[in-house]
Amino acid sequence: MTDSAGFGTALVEAGLLYPTGVPGVSGRSRLYADVVRGLHDLVDRWGAELGAIEIQFPPVVNRTTFEQTNYIQSFPDLMGVIEVFTGDDRDHAELCRRSESGKDWNDLLDASEVFLASAACHPVYPMCTGTLPPEGCHFNVQSYCFRHEPSSDPARMQSFQMHELVVVGTPEQAQRHRDEGLEHGIVLLRRLGLDLAVVTANDPFFGRLGTAMAHNQQDEALKLEGTAPIGADDHAVAIISGNCHRDHFGAPFAIQTADGDVAHSACVAFGMDRITLALFWKHGFDPEHWPAEVVTTLWP
Amino acid sequence: MTDSAGFGTALVEAGLLYPTGVPGVSGRSRLYADVVRGLHDLVDRWGAELGAIEIQFPPVVNRTTFEQTNYIQSFPDLMGVIEVFTGDDRDHAELCRRSESGKDWNDLLDASEVFLASAACHPVYPMCTGTLPPEGCHFNVQSYCFRHEPSSDPARMQSFQMHELVVVGTPEQAQRHRDEGLEHGIVLLRRLGLDLAVVTANDPFFGRLGTAMAHNQQDEALKLEGTAPIGADDHAVAIISGNCHRDHFGAPFAIQTADGDVAHSACVAFGMDRITLALFWKHGFDPEHWPAEVVTTLWP
Repeated sequence: MTDSAGFGTALVEAGLLYPTGVPGVSGRSRLYADVVRGLHDLVDRWGAELGAIEIQFPPVVNRTTFEQTNYIQSFPDLMGVIEVFTGDDRDHAELCRRSESGKDWNDLLDASEVFLASAACHPVYPMCTGTLPPEGCHFNVQSYCFRHEPSSDPARMQSFQMHELVVVGTPEQAQRHRDEGLEHGIVLLRRLGLDLAVVTANDPFFGRLGTAMAHNQQDEALKLEGTAPIGADDHAVAIISGNCHRDHFGAPFAIQTADGDVAHSACVAFGMDRITLALFWKHGFDPEHWPAEVVTTLWP
Repeated sequence: MTDSAGFGTALVEAGLLYPTGVPGVSGRSRLYADVVRGLHDLVDRWGAELGAIEIQFPPVVNRTTFEQTNYIQSFPDLMGVIEVFTGDDRDHAELCRRSESGKDWNDLLDASEVFLASAACHPVYPMCTGTLPPEGCHFNVQSYCFRHEPSSDPARMQSFQMHELVVVGTPEQAQRHRDEGLEHGIVLLRRLGLDLAVVTANDPFFGRLGTAMAHNQQDEALKLEGTAPIGADDHAVAIISGNCHRDHFGAPFAIQTADGDVAHSACVAFGMDRITLALFWKHGFDPEHWPAEVVTTLWP
């Protein structure tokens, strides 16, 4: 297990992941899913302490919400657009003819009301439209997310599970959540025996304009990541991030603070699949042999 | 709560479901999710007795697999096709221009390697390609599924959770699983206090040709459903089904029995969201007041 493809192969041979023929789209075994469940419960216990509203979202998100997040402008290459067939018998016959002869049938489809979710937190912002209570709003949300980046690296899945603690409130409330929340999240993950480093990071903004946006995000230290080794010569992979969105969501979703200012938001996002992989990489494939503190933290 | 819209509104007012603005696409509360988790565990215990291979699949499925299931031919109106953007800066500028002015940008997208999952069992068939062991293969699978049928009926979600026990084997093994498996599944659900009726049913095949296929499926009693009352004057809704696929998957996926015949398959499919709604409809919104046997069956 000295390279990432090797680690991916080892996960499949150990029966933890089931390949489906598409890179980054895999079935999870019971053991793998039990680790993910333990992680969800760990984050949920923290969310309960914060009094956060707990919501599990489906893997698809309202089209209007998605458009308002600016994802199409910033990360068009990562999104999953969902289209549907609304034609009649005649159109269907044409669709079948083209499908069976390997021809493109894209033009027979229509835009649907949904996109694949890109982040677990997107659906909470339209819920906040209007004026916030003085203490702001805390959410504890999770969903399957999709990002189109086919890769043989097991840590770069196209369909993956994200769990986020989100605060929508004043600039100070948001900044504090990003700073103290990320710190607490990292404490939780270190209790699982993971070796985390905290680094300033940027999102993978698309294209020429994106390069400038990424530099700006780095310069202002809006995004911090906690990285841990996974496979490939202990290559450091981001498994948790703390993100200060400023008014990126507050403005388009018309959210204002109790004082009437545009709301800010921040999230601490746990990459559940990457954390799971980091645990298997660090402690081995058999939780029976994991350190006692890791086991009791995950499954108290 | 005398009509389905009324029950849907009551679920939202009770904080069990969070609407997202698209019919049939809702967030789930912690309590709702706890019921779903209890149901998954109940089915998993049965799956373990059967020695079934347990896999949790992501909400997207390999395009080739999807095409081989014949879903495009039979249910084109229900599928969710996923497309992606693979263009350059110039294409992206055009995409943004059209998106921001509300114009169609479908033709700027390409087909992706995946579809939204329509059934939890589809990914297991390519895993079986080749010759089966004499006892056949048992799978215990779950995933979020998507069917494009927008409706205000809370029991008709577009994005919903399915859990299936699948047998791939000889015609006798498949038929026995459909018959005895469905019977056992119904016993489990009756233990939850649900009033189930078993009826012969058909899948919603598309178009003119589909009508004949539906009649055929009914005549040969290939699909049985267990229905329970949900909302709207106790309207009977299918919450579990037993399906004999015959060689519908064995043939295209080149699966053969130990004797060299084309394999048959069958599944018992639990509609996890519909079972959850049936429980809330029958027993009320507060599990603290549910009958003791229901609670101990769900959360032993």
